[in-house]
Amino acid sequence: MGEKVTLVGGGLAGSLMAIYLAKRGYEVHMYERRPDMRSGQYQGGRSINLALSTRGINALSRVGLVDDILKIAIPMKGRQMHDRQGNLNYQPYGHADQAIYSVSRGELNIRLLQLADQFPNIHMQFETRCVHCDFQTGETRYVDSDGYEFADKADIVLATDGAYSAVRDTMMRTTGFDYSQAYESHGYKELEIVPGANGTFQMEENALHIWPRASFMMIALPNPGGNFTCTLFLDENEINALDTPEKVKAFFDKEFADAVPMMPHLVEDFFNNPTGSLVTMRCYPWVKGKAALMGDSAHAVVPFYGQGMNCSFEDCVVLDDCLEKYQGDWEKSLAEYQIKRKPNADAIATLAVQNFIEMRDLVGQPEFLRKKRLEHALSELYPGVYKSQYERVTFSNEDYAEALRMGSVNDALLQHIIDEDLENELENREQMLGLMAQFQAC
Amino acid sequence: MGEKVTLVGGGLAGSLMAIYLAKRGYEVHMYERRPDMRSGQYQGGRSINLALSTRGINALSRVGLVDDILKIAIPMKGRQMHDRQGNLNYQPYGHADQAIYSVSRGELNIRLLQLADQFPNIHMQFETRCVHCDFQTGETRYVDSDGYEFADKADIVLATDGAYSAVRDTMMRTTGFDYSQAYESHGYKELEIVPGANGTFQMEENALHIWPRASFMMIALPNPGGNFTCTLFLDENEINALDTPEKVKAFFDKEFADAVPMMPHLVEDFFNNPTGSLVTMRCYPWVKGKAALMGDSAHAVVPFYGQGMNCSFEDCVVLDDCLEKYQGDWEKSLAEYQIKRKPNADAIATLAVQNFIEMRDLVGQPEFLRKKRLEHALSELYPGVYKSQYERVTFSNEDYAEALRMGSVNDALLQHIIDEDLENELENREQMLGLMAQFQAC
Repeated sequence: MGEKVTLVGGGLAGSLMAIYLAKRGYEVHMYERRPDMRSGQYQGGRSINLALSTRGINALSRVGLVDDILKIAIPMKGRQMHDRQGNLNYQPYGHADQAIYSVSRGELNIRLLQLADQFPNIHMQFETRCVHCDFQTGETRYVDSDGYEFADKADIVLATDGAYSAVRDTMMRTTGFDYSQAYESHGYKELEIVPGANGTFQMEENALHIWPRASFMMIALPNPGGNFTCTLFLDENEINALDTPEKVKAFFDKEFADAVPMMPHLVEDFFNNPTGSLVTMRCYPWVKGKAALMGDSAHAVVPFYGQGMNCSFEDCVVLDDCLEKYQGDWEKSLAEYQIKRKPNADAIATLAVQNFIEMRDLVGQPEFLRKKRLEHALSELYPGVYKSQYERVTFSNEDYAEALRMGSVNDALLQHIIDEDLENELENREQMLGLMAQFQAC
Repeated sequence: MGEKVTLVGGGLAGSLMAIYLAKRGYEVHMYERRPDMRSGQYQGGRSINLALSTRGINALSRVGLVDDILKIAIPMKGRQMHDRQGNLNYQPYGHADQAIYSVSRGELNIRLLQLADQFPNIHMQFETRCVHCDFQTGETRYVDSDGYEFADKADIVLATDGAYSAVRDTMMRTTGFDYSQAYESHGYKELEIVPGANGTFQMEENALHIWPRASFMMIALPNPGGNFTCTLFLDENEINALDTPEKVKAFFDKEFADAVPMMPHLVEDFFNNPTGSLVTMRCYPWVKGKAALMGDSAHAVVPFYGQGMNCSFEDCVVLDDCLEKYQGDWEKSLAEYQIKRKPNADAIATLAVQNFIEMRDLVGQPEFLRKKRLEHALSELYPGVYKSQYERVTFSNEDYAEALRMGSVNDALLQHIIDEDLENELENREQMLGLMAQFQAC
């Protein structure tokens, strides 16, 4: 059993994992490349708001942080679609009591760091960049903010250093390490809808807003200050083609006319904020000697299912469960962790790419919305029996791989109901349960 | 038009491309990480013999090297399969006059370097490692054998620095660069069958020998010295499990009994030679600013179709053709080069993985050999009309992507002939041509 654990990266997964490990009695040394967020230097402009859902809440509940976090979060109970004329169309995410929670990445990270700081066996060092990892010895090397290079050695090294992980970079240079990175042609720009008079929300507060435009879209998530963080997703060449204030203004006037009056500093934001890129990264194995990858360093996904952070937190939960099950035997724990998580990380990566098409295109189509209404009705009539893919991903802890599989099953069932004109039979319990069983068996 | 071209890497593709460019009048500066092979320090032990075929011969013919190379090559007209009892089974690759040529990678490279040396506008520097490439300016940076770092700047940078390309590494850190590396679970060991008395060949000289064992295999290619270069392909864990001379001896006695008496230093080779690994690498785009990837740096394939070098040489041919077509306009030439080559590189990568299964498993199965005999008969009866996938890949310059597609068409046709008992109708020209047209149209 390893007594000292190095965590490379003090972001969301790193700081949560540090607390889990500290509670188990490990000496935890956490190194973070960026400055300490608690020092007030946290800046947005490049991070989509996070949507905390069941898996993330489950993970936070292990450290008693749920109530604190929900206080700074805003529940979103469905999607509000805006068409070019400003007409609205609402689609609930699940049952009346189900919601996802809009929360600031920075605020969430700060709460986790504050909690971590209360453990004497967690040692944190910021502005310290990892430059190497020796998987055999457990030694990691760093450069600090003064340019001073030093090494640390631990029994176990956990890499929570994100999509551009330095530890994974070292792994990539070893034989037998499978890796892929695939970019979307779309980039993104973070923008803002400001609060109305007296800090009120200018649009429905408890919804995730979408302006679906088939090949592109804008979304907006509410913040406690009454403003919304907006993100435009558009082909990078088209973003680059919007190279004058006039072109930006004309584009938004045409595509998002109802939002423009609420975006007074649209043009400045557009040119001041960097263009983000969207990448899906897969790799394997995640465990090499004494080191293991977790969170975005193991599986970076596009943000369209709102599961990046939830999935990373679930990595921590699963590893924590393994450590419990194997009573601190790291070799067994890490082996089971990667076998359990890899197919689920692959599934959420696929789901996230699929959901981009749903959000930007399908939710703007009447036939799709009809299918979603049908699905919602089934879900209300047969709670716990008929579960939508969204419900399985967002409001449960079941395997992402199972949610991916059942999404196809559901889709075939819904198409069958439409094709066979069974929409008036939804309350025929025997018939519907029979159909569900039949399609699931396919 | 760029007048100065930097070639990063002086291996097979690099030295051939240097000559093409020199003939077009460019100033070519070529940097190679390894020592100059002509100094006699070339060592084997990790390179499978190359099988030169039509695409490679076509590429060498542009620089007048074909006759020189064929003099040091040995034609292989078919596969000779060895079963566990030492029974032999022969399968021709194509028509009687068709062969692939076993040639030493080192010897081939030396001939290319010797030719390159005759051009005053080719400047070569060895033991000089590329450490950075600036795509915008065309500047590359190097460290030479004394540890001295310097930069060079050119109008165009071509990366011919292999599967672990430093230029591609720099590209990978830019947004929008798709990349994947996927390892086979098999590793490989290079071994040797020695010459018999008076330097004679102990097995059929004009064949590629295969010991197919379903999940693994050994192959042997003839060398001019009367010896054969053997390569064992086996799961890496199983290679590692052969950790004593006794285990190695017992394994070979059981699996390759007929070869063992011809391998007097088997055990020493097994433990002295490193275990190689097998990776398929894909990426895109290949062109970024003033730099472009060629050969293994753009597409590393597993060696089972014997096309790695042939495919890399074809990259050079295609780029040379583009430079001719666009009269030295590099932007247009590189754009067309990558669009033309990418689908073909993807196809040969897929074909090479498929051929591993064919070589290690299918060629040991009677039904497969029956199909191959049928295919050979069709190919002899309808030359130029029925062309096997192997013929399209190996004995033609047609697109690899087309060969991949036609392989499936052929396979369906052959299965149909077997299923419908048409094997006695092969000479019925009208029927067969009708069938071929019908299957091709599917």
